[in-house]
Amino acid sequence: MTATDAAAVIHNDLRRPAARPLARRAASFGPSPWEAVIRLLDRHPDMIFFGNGAPAMELMPVARLQEAAARVWADAPGHLGYGDVAGFAPLRELIAARMATQGIVAHPDSLLLTNGSQQGIDLIARLVLDPGDIVLVEAPTYLGALQVFDAFEATYLTVPTDGDGLRVDALEQALAGSSRPPKLLYTVPTFQNPTGSTMPRARREALLEVARAHGILVVEDDPYGELRYDGQAEPALRALDPDVIYLGTFSKTIAPGLRVGWLAAPPDLVTPLLTAREAGDIHNERMTARIVYHAASDFLDDHLVGARAVYRRRRDALLEGLTDHLPLGARWTEPGGGFFVWVELPEGLSADGLLPHAAGHGVVYLPGSWFYPDSRERDSLRLSFSTLSEATITEGTRRLGRAVMEGLAERG
Amino acid sequence: MTATDAAAVIHNDLRRPAARPLARRAASFGPSPWEAVIRLLDRHPDMIFFGNGAPAMELMPVARLQEAAARVWADAPGHLGYGDVAGFAPLRELIAARMATQGIVAHPDSLLLTNGSQQGIDLIARLVLDPGDIVLVEAPTYLGALQVFDAFEATYLTVPTDGDGLRVDALEQALAGSSRPPKLLYTVPTFQNPTGSTMPRARREALLEVARAHGILVVEDDPYGELRYDGQAEPALRALDPDVIYLGTFSKTIAPGLRVGWLAAPPDLVTPLLTAREAGDIHNERMTARIVYHAASDFLDDHLVGARAVYRRRRDALLEGLTDHLPLGARWTEPGGGFFVWVELPEGLSADGLLPHAAGHGVVYLPGSWFYPDSRERDSLRLSFSTLSEATITEGTRRLGRAVMEGLAERG
Repeated sequence: MTATDAAAVIHNDLRRPAARPLARRAASFGPSPWEAVIRLLDRHPDMIFFGNGAPAMELMPVARLQEAAARVWADAPGHLGYGDVAGFAPLRELIAARMATQGIVAHPDSLLLTNGSQQGIDLIARLVLDPGDIVLVEAPTYLGALQVFDAFEATYLTVPTDGDGLRVDALEQALAGSSRPPKLLYTVPTFQNPTGSTMPRARREALLEVARAHGILVVEDDPYGELRYDGQAEPALRALDPDVIYLGTFSKTIAPGLRVGWLAAPPDLVTPLLTAREAGDIHNERMTARIVYHAASDFLDDHLVGARAVYRRRRDALLEGLTDHLPLGARWTEPGGGFFVWVELPEGLSADGLLPHAAGHGVVYLPGSWFYPDSRERDSLRLSFSTLSEATITEGTRRLGRAVMEGLAERG
Repeated sequence: MTATDAAAVIHNDLRRPAARPLARRAASFGPSPWEAVIRLLDRHPDMIFFGNGAPAMELMPVARLQEAAARVWADAPGHLGYGDVAGFAPLRELIAARMATQGIVAHPDSLLLTNGSQQGIDLIARLVLDPGDIVLVEAPTYLGALQVFDAFEATYLTVPTDGDGLRVDALEQALAGSSRPPKLLYTVPTFQNPTGSTMPRARREALLEVARAHGILVVEDDPYGELRYDGQAEPALRALDPDVIYLGTFSKTIAPGLRVGWLAAPPDLVTPLLTAREAGDIHNERMTARIVYHAASDFLDDHLVGARAVYRRRRDALLEGLTDHLPLGARWTEPGGGFFVWVELPEGLSADGLLPHAAGHGVVYLPGSWFYPDSRERDSLRLSFSTLSEATITEGTRRLGRAVMEGLAERG
């Protein structure tokens, strides 16, 4: 039977029930939002895609990873069986030591490796959330976190942000207006996804004080903290309060395809998180954890110096391009690191409505609506500069500017 | 600050709340049952551990995997970024072709790679189970499946088994006595974990008929199907009914540390499963999926011929040892493949109660209680023969025989 025959069998299977009883949470498992955007990429022969929130392929330390892989695979026999659920201990020790340099005290036994920080968010949701429980999120926030919390049937309480990240005054208002205490607060305090903004220290301290007063578990997702291009680092929330759950990842600093992140948990949560992980998929792929260990110990700091320089230039090209090409009334963030600039269009122009026109002009972004739990149309959008050359970024802003001007003109 | 200091900080942190509000499901995230067994392993200087349900380390095709790894890493640059959520397409095509030789028609687009079949069970539970939903499981069944269903707050309906696996007559009785229709039925029909028993074709057909009549989604977990030592293969449930979800894995045939399994879903469930996977941990580690692809296409069949011969001898040694050393009244299964023999002790002796004594004699098994949702003490136990030499297996049965005799004598 050929593959085409097999497809025919699948699509003509009449015994399949019309509507299967699924879990309530399956309502959140519709088509991935990425599909609609990927379809737009065909609209122009030379599309510039500002949507890729990944590190630049050309910056990945391929030769050094290949060396690390050769070392690890030469030593394979001992590591092909089942292993420690927490993950490769030397890597956890190395992570603990790296975090210590950022003022975070975390014992290696309080760390567990994850398949990227996405799985860290998922494990926390598993541990903490019953259906209907309230989760505090920044508005806007990381799309992937919303996907997790949707799957755990969370109720959202959104906290507005400004150029300094989550507004603690708005958090207090939200809490005052909430009939039930939230279970957890999810935040990306440094070079936030999608806005690029960073919370100053005073605001971090105020946030933690409010969270402690209300008994709210704080989850700090920090994928971009090591990708700083200007200024001084703010302390991690986890450095200010050991009760914060900290999520880290090598996806942005080494390579996302390797799927290695970590979670630093308060001690009382370590055992339940490990058991949840064991029940979910047992443990990380073992060879890759070792390859990442060699990468992180042998050359990560060196690699980051070069990567930061490239990303800094790309960010500068983006900010300059926006200044040159966006019409009056558009506003955007000026991130000190990470991958993202957040743009608000002039005169409340819908970023969702504008997107197909922008695609026609040869530029695609992610509309701001993706980053809010209610998904409604908004005048904001996210631009990623990490994977594009400076020349491409400049041209992309030119195209975006033309699309915005056209959108304004059409509105009359 | 030293690691010891860090530990002191962690353990003396007075701000930590005494009892944190967790999800209801967290009640199932207690210490792993493995911990208690691992502690027993110190009780004898030369412990024989019949608990390891993993493939033999010495059989893993290390040199060939190393060659595959070298090839894959040489081609690394294109695969270090984010990729297809479903996983490496050529591996899915190869899996579809392998399944076709077993009479299973599954389009590569209806397959998704998973971090072992454990994650496959988890994804299905996510998609289907609301708290309190009824899951049908064999009694006894795979411990890891119970861990998943516990985490999704399932209500269990257990179906007794005999030497031919799940008893369909008992299934019909269970359904007749159930106030609500079950959402899914989880079964390991071939070389079952923990009993080693296999359902004959007629029983498979009867099972599917009952499931269809009641609209129950059937999940077929088949980690051991390719490890057959005697006789002819029974058809996979998925070969008899395309509406069955089939879970496969390379954990038992290649190496579990690599964490590569797959799930074949009915077409209407593919998109929600992919979205659930994306929300959970995005996708499999990409290099390892490629290494497993080379392994499966270049040498898996050849490798399995040798592995089966070794496992067959180990199974024979175990069956012979049990015959030689267990007292009258003990009974055990005679599996045609897989890794496990299920032993019922004479005169209702508790396998849980006997375990510390057996450890004192230098042998440790997994008590049968692990494999039932109610976890109560039972007279049954699971012996794995996959990782032990024939001589060790023989000696292990001798020790087990002594422990059982002593247990019977103590009871008087």
